[in-house]
Amino acid sequence: MHQMWGGRFTGGPEASFAELNRSLPVDHRLWPHDIRGSQAWVGALARAGILTSVEAETLHQGLDRVAGRLADGAAADAPDEDVHTLVERLLYEEVGDLAGKLHTGRSRNDQVSTDLRLWCLEALEQVDREVVALGTALAGRAEQGVDLLLPGYTHGQQAQPVRWAYVLLAHAWPLVRDRERLADAARRVAVLPLGSGALAGSGMPVDRNLLREALGFRAISPNALDATGERDFVVEIVFVLALLMTHVSRLAGELFTYSTTEFGFVRLADGYCTGSSLMPQKRNPDVLELARVKVARTLSDVVGLLTALKGLPAGYSKDLQEDKVFLFDAVDTVRLTLPAVRGAVATMEPVPERMSAALQRGMLATDLADGLVAQGVPFREAHGLVGRLVQEAERSRVDLAAVPPEAARAIHEALPALLTSLGSFADSVERRATLGGSARASVLVQLTELAAAFRA
Amino acid sequence: MHQMWGGRFTGGPEASFAELNRSLPVDHRLWPHDIRGSQAWVGALARAGILTSVEAETLHQGLDRVAGRLADGAAADAPDEDVHTLVERLLYEEVGDLAGKLHTGRSRNDQVSTDLRLWCLEALEQVDREVVALGTALAGRAEQGVDLLLPGYTHGQQAQPVRWAYVLLAHAWPLVRDRERLADAARRVAVLPLGSGALAGSGMPVDRNLLREALGFRAISPNALDATGERDFVVEIVFVLALLMTHVSRLAGELFTYSTTEFGFVRLADGYCTGSSLMPQKRNPDVLELARVKVARTLSDVVGLLTALKGLPAGYSKDLQEDKVFLFDAVDTVRLTLPAVRGAVATMEPVPERMSAALQRGMLATDLADGLVAQGVPFREAHGLVGRLVQEAERSRVDLAAVPPEAARAIHEALPALLTSLGSFADSVERRATLGGSARASVLVQLTELAAAFRA
Amino acid sequence: MHQMWGGRFTGGPEASFAELNRSLPVDHRLWPHDIRGSQAWVGALARAGILTSVEAETLHQGLDRVAGRLADGAAADAPDEDVHTLVERLLYEEVGDLAGKLHTGRSRNDQVSTDLRLWCLEALEQVDREVVALGTALAGRAEQGVDLLLPGYTHGQQAQPVRWAYVLLAHAWPLVRDRERLADAARRVAVLPLGSGALAGSGMPVDRNLLREALGFRAISPNALDATGERDFVVEIVFVLALLMTHVSRLAGELFTYSTTEFGFVRLADGYCTGSSLMPQKRNPDVLELARVKVARTLSDVVGLLTALKGLPAGYSKDLQEDKVFLFDAVDTVRLTLPAVRGAVATMEPVPERMSAALQRGMLATDLADGLVAQGVPFREAHGLVGRLVQEAERSRVDLAAVPPEAARAIHEALPALLTSLGSFADSVERRATLGGSARASVLVQLTELAAAFRA
Amino acid sequence: MHQMWGGRFTGGPEASFAELNRSLPVDHRLWPHDIRGSQAWVGALARAGILTSVEAETLHQGLDRVAGRLADGAAADAPDEDVHTLVERLLYEEVGDLAGKLHTGRSRNDQVSTDLRLWCLEALEQVDREVVALGTALAGRAEQGVDLLLPGYTHGQQAQPVRWAYVLLAHAWPLVRDRERLADAARRVAVLPLGSGALAGSGMPVDRNLLREALGFRAISPNALDATGERDFVVEIVFVLALLMTHVSRLAGELFTYSTTEFGFVRLADGYCTGSSLMPQKRNPDVLELARVKVARTLSDVVGLLTALKGLPAGYSKDLQEDKVFLFDAVDTVRLTLPAVRGAVATMEPVPERMSAALQRGMLATDLADGLVAQGVPFREAHGLVGRLVQEAERSRVDLAAVPPEAARAIHEALPALLTSLGSFADSVERRATLGGSARASVLVQLTELAAAFRA
Repeated sequence: MHQMWGGRFTGGPEASFAELNRSLPVDHRLWPHDIRGSQAWVGALARAGILTSVEAETLHQGLDRVAGRLADGAAADAPDEDVHTLVERLLYEEVGDLAGKLHTGRSRNDQVSTDLRLWCLEALEQVDREVVALGTALAGRAEQGVDLLLPGYTHGQQAQPVRWAYVLLAHAWPLVRDRERLADAARRVAVLPLGSGALAGSGMPVDRNLLREALGFRAISPNALDATGERDFVVEIVFVLALLMTHVSRLAGELFTYSTTEFGFVRLADGYCTGSSLMPQKRNPDVLELARVKVARTLSDVVGLLTALKGLPAGYSKDLQEDKVFLFDAVDTVRLTLPAVRGAVATMEPVPERMSAALQRGMLATDLADGLVAQGVPFREAHGLVGRLVQEAERSRVDLAAVPPEAARAIHEALPALLTSLGSFADSVERRATLGGSARASVLVQLTELAAAFRA
Repeated sequence: MHQMWGGRFTGGPEASFAELNRSLPVDHRLWPHDIRGSQAWVGALARAGILTSVEAETLHQGLDRVAGRLADGAAADAPDEDVHTLVERLLYEEVGDLAGKLHTGRSRNDQVSTDLRLWCLEALEQVDREVVALGTALAGRAEQGVDLLLPGYTHGQQAQPVRWAYVLLAHAWPLVRDRERLADAARRVAVLPLGSGALAGSGMPVDRNLLREALGFRAISPNALDATGERDFVVEIVFVLALLMTHVSRLAGELFTYSTTEFGFVRLADGYCTGSSLMPQKRNPDVLELARVKVARTLSDVVGLLTALKGLPAGYSKDLQEDKVFLFDAVDTVRLTLPAVRGAVATMEPVPERMSAALQRGMLATDLADGLVAQGVPFREAHGLVGRLVQEAERSRVDLAAVPPEAARAIHEALPALLTSLGSFADSVERRATLGGSARASVLVQLTELAAAFRA
Repeated sequence: MHQMWGGRFTGGPEASFAELNRSLPVDHRLWPHDIRGSQAWVGALARAGILTSVEAETLHQGLDRVAGRLADGAAADAPDEDVHTLVERLLYEEVGDLAGKLHTGRSRNDQVSTDLRLWCLEALEQVDREVVALGTALAGRAEQGVDLLLPGYTHGQQAQPVRWAYVLLAHAWPLVRDRERLADAARRVAVLPLGSGALAGSGMPVDRNLLREALGFRAISPNALDATGERDFVVEIVFVLALLMTHVSRLAGELFTYSTTEFGFVRLADGYCTGSSLMPQKRNPDVLELARVKVARTLSDVVGLLTALKGLPAGYSKDLQEDKVFLFDAVDTVRLTLPAVRGAVATMEPVPERMSAALQRGMLATDLADGLVAQGVPFREAHGLVGRLVQEAERSRVDLAAVPPEAARAIHEALPALLTSLGSFADSVERRATLGGSARASVLVQLTELAAAFRA
Repeated sequence: MHQMWGGRFTGGPEASFAELNRSLPVDHRLWPHDIRGSQAWVGALARAGILTSVEAETLHQGLDRVAGRLADGAAADAPDEDVHTLVERLLYEEVGDLAGKLHTGRSRNDQVSTDLRLWCLEALEQVDREVVALGTALAGRAEQGVDLLLPGYTHGQQAQPVRWAYVLLAHAWPLVRDRERLADAARRVAVLPLGSGALAGSGMPVDRNLLREALGFRAISPNALDATGERDFVVEIVFVLALLMTHVSRLAGELFTYSTTEFGFVRLADGYCTGSSLMPQKRNPDVLELARVKVARTLSDVVGLLTALKGLPAGYSKDLQEDKVFLFDAVDTVRLTLPAVRGAVATMEPVPERMSAALQRGMLATDLADGLVAQGVPFREAHGLVGRLVQEAERSRVDLAAVPPEAARAIHEALPALLTSLGSFADSVERRATLGGSARASVLVQLTELAAAFRA
């Protein structure tokens, strides 16, 4: 079997070790980037005079043919140790012994980091597109829900009335921050490790700037021992995805609550629910439960990566091979989850009558206290007085606005009049007109800003 | 497509959701346990008079044929939602509409917990066998290394001389504790959930005790809401594996250090090393690096599971579906890693000359202090005096035993004589003769006890 | 300043390092166990003839006086490196140079493990008492709620009617498992490390069996290198607490949902709620939110511990010092959280009218399907037919039981009659009469079994 | 006792709940930021006409006096629920009922996020200074070690010779990336939440832009529900610190290995080591062990935070209160660890004779293979040939350069001449002259670039 090493060994790997050691089942998906990086390397070797132009051309075309075979499925069931060995073996099959010149001055240590960074840059773009799509869906639904009022909650308890649009946008803004973090991460991914050799730089006079340009990187790694032994870019990406999935989890958790029979604010489309194998009436919001739980995957990936790196010296250790399991799992999780959540958001139906039926007058208590403030009562005192009014209403089991004037007056003389002029829930919402508040104007501003923020 | 639900739905699942929702790629490996549980269920339904004996026999044989097809690979590329749907669909193909009677009084909620517990019981046995095999390998190597002395370390610094056997056994004892924890976990796994229905118990008068016996469980779950909604047994197993892999990581970390050129105490067999694609002389202890890092996988699985469970109500939530990803990953990691580590341990060669060359006389300092204690000097004072002697030896760049008598006497008059009678490293080792110490007798006791502890 | 080392050093620790190194702010709470372990050690040294009986008595009494001073607060603002140094320094103050004989044949490595195990055994007992108290409170409330019906949920959606008692007991049973795990952990904690010395056993002929008896341990550590370098018992305890807190989190999460205005099944007592600094009407279930989140602390402690241990060799490494931060945090978290949760459970009020108002007839769909089964329809088919009935009811916006007979008959001829004889929610609950089901008899059995299980 | 709520409550909090609920023991350190934020709020209320200028001045001065009292220790043993209550209570003591006007239009929800962000901005600056200091120390030591050669390692095995400077710089570059991430995080921290009220915006017409300027923020939070309910900035900071501590852990791990007796490349200063309580000769590199393990703290903090946030709805939940425990722990860990590590790095002594003694000729194998490449042998073939030479050297137990010419010629005819002209280790190092390589020129470039990168 083709190996990239072994001259000094007397026997091959034992079966149990070979199975543990083999990374092809995980890293095979790097083959397009391995080909691309190898072709750039051929170019650099040629420019350095290590390959003739004919050799370079032959290798380049051979790698193209290898890519063709891999695109046709040649990686499936391949016996090789890893993706690099697979590509080299196939290249031997295509161009013969000349293939043995490809790895001149290169190590799998700089090669795999290059492959992985190329893969990450693509993955980050795809993830970003999914984030934009989800954010755009939320903003779109918000646009339709500007005039829909429902209770706003803190601690799970009704707090102040808000707009449905406003709630949806509270889940869109975190995605804007996610995009920023994705971009920041991408900037740090786009640093070329190729030309670092195994740990000390390449022994061949390759032009790393040329390589950087050929592969579309932004900068060149400044220390080969660091370049081959660090996986910060992987950790950062996986963390950013874990935070993104936390946002998805929070959105899903909130919609899950709203889609219970008891809240009933939202009805998911049939296409995003499942039934029960036993109970014929069930209609389960599985999409939300799965979206809520998937952050567990990405968080576990962060933990796995940082645990793997703990205490390692600079330079390559085999421990680093484990990075791809966590990275691919995190990226796959995002790519699997976001489209389904976007679809569920785009097709769910708000239930205006349940939202408005849920609004309790107690939520206007702050407005009452603010009314007392306007009459010169210090807020903390006003808060206490209205608290007593709330207590009175609960004691008499009446709506806050229905506390008898005499009882209200006993608490503060201005209360009966304030109760009469309290106004509607919509009035209360409009009173929160600061930047970022739930008033109509503020929500419209947000919609405009988000449209810009989600422009891809 | 066959579904276990859908009567009340107007359309099928959307593609993005179907992909997110589908668990067959993960849970397909439960099929033997799903068949087994289903056959037991057929028996219980028959006993309860819900199936005729002819129906029961037909279903039982049909399930046998389904098992045969699955053993032949029918799960590969199957389009079903999950393993339960797959089995039911195939059963329809085998026995026609009678298949529709199988799920009477059962839910996927109690079914999957039953399947999973059956799977876990098998997995725990396999893992236990691997732990025994590794422990036995360590004890075997220890037996050969009773008379091999090397420095014992704390804080990475030479501390006191010990036996090679003693070091190996320090890594075997944790495996004994692992076996205890595996057994404790297994006791809690062996509780039957079948007959719990979806959340409230089965609507059919099935005899759960009969089911328990048929499936080999120890006890019966006492509350169906708990039984269908808890995954404590999964979490506990995965934790026990994470602690086991911590032990493997520590063993690997220590052998890794000993296999450096600079220590050189141990030489791995070729079959457990790899070379470098660039550097022809390299012989890398990959087996140890991989064994060191794999705990990251199992720890990440613990985190994923506990994060998934956080805050869920009792009863089944779809979030629980994620459990199998973490469980299977942890078990697979152990089953992949332990055989390779065992092989590496069984074939590695200790290098006695490097071990004995490394022994520094400074390690006898405690013996010196103990010698002063024997002459009535309080230990704390003796410790300080010998510390000064060590300082003197370093200052003069001589071995501790070579500090000139006059310099030693200046520190304490008894020191010159003690230095003369210090004895060999072996003498020092034998002085630690308490139970569990590094003296020969204690090591032999350990070997006997471990032989018993690793009897499968 | 008193130090337990330093003879060979030319200068003291640098300030930044001394601060990093110093563990007294964390480990000071081990002082009672350090005293107790030291007194046992004095006994062992005396029995071995290393101390005279007068010396032993003096040291013993001196340690008593040190304990008295520490009980009076002598640890506060003490400048010492760690608790062992503190105790030794105070002992010098009490008995003079004789104090220097205490540490003969002992190391801080076996000492701290002994102290910590003694602390853990106490902590486990306290935690167990808290678990019993919470479980007993749940069972007590369940006893009052046997006849209170409410919707049972899966996926957050109404599934089948159940008893309030049954829901509470679903949260009590996990605590029974927690008690088992606490006991299993305690068994592994109760292993004596004292007499292990620094790594290789004690150089003094102390009787470890005597020490074991004096300190109340169950067994003796079999390998000193393992005994001084392992923290499995700490990891296991912290994991068990993390799983316990997961159960608390689930209980809290479910009660949180039930205490929303929209569900309204439960009303917490004022003494377990807080208000808002701004909104006078707010009454927030903080106790439940805090109980829900605290698992984050214990899970983080598991991660911290396992990360700390990864890759360490056998024997003591300073890394182990970090164990106590995680252990104490986890135990403190449990001891802080459980009493408050117990109080909230004991004082909360179920709201029967909200529970019964929430019950939807759709939850009887399984009963309908079971009715068809009784007439010979295979369950899978029956499930589909009732699903269509549910669809019909939703289309016509009527209760399931109110679907017109002709529409029902169009689906299956037996349905109209089944709809008429469906019975009450209580009838449905009683139909789930298997062991562990929600029927009255099963709940009463559970109450009896739990009373036994929570007997302390 | 002063409370910011309670008007509607009939009793105070139960003791067990009060203890669980109380955050002052953790959040007291926010007082300077609470004062600062409150003074800005006073300004905004005055500008909005809600306070007269006299009232505003009185409150401002009152807050100054409160700050004075807190600086003098008034927070110690204060009985208050949290830092906000403490400040308000003291303000009442200073200015009487006017204090009740401070909280007008504000909630603790926007207040605490503002306080916390102000605290974070300071903390980030301090951490950045520590990172610069450590990086500068590494670069400083590298400058002295440009001409010191030692083995470079991959997989813990000697790979190619490198410069001591080069190894140190491989640990400095990650700190440059850390600084970038700290700056990116700071940009996202500097967003003003004040004026968001409890969840829906402030009911008072405060000018948030004025607040932003007064408090030095960069931007204004666009959605109040998001602003009060998100802790992304906390999570991001803690993650960045966890990655920073991973770098510290890797540096410490590598120096730990080099400070063993067996490697002996580095000797720590006495001021960063400890001794043993038992073994007089011990000199333990505790600073490195503690620096290695502390990443466990910060990683556990990341886990705790993300677990806490999972599944929460938008808006404030009490669960968020737990954020500060994790944040403060992570920042404190960094501030405790980095100065000690910097000190250890600044004072450690490299041991040139041990470094050069460790250099094995086998590390020149790549140079030999490159020599064959220069003669037209494809690299993969050259690699195999030199592998056989290495095998031959090991078989004959001679240095690679000492393989007899005839044996070398039997492998490849060019080998004897290449062996003769192999040159020194320094020659080999200079052959790796690509950007980022270990050659002298490249190291000097790195030193220049790092000096710029660590300019504060």
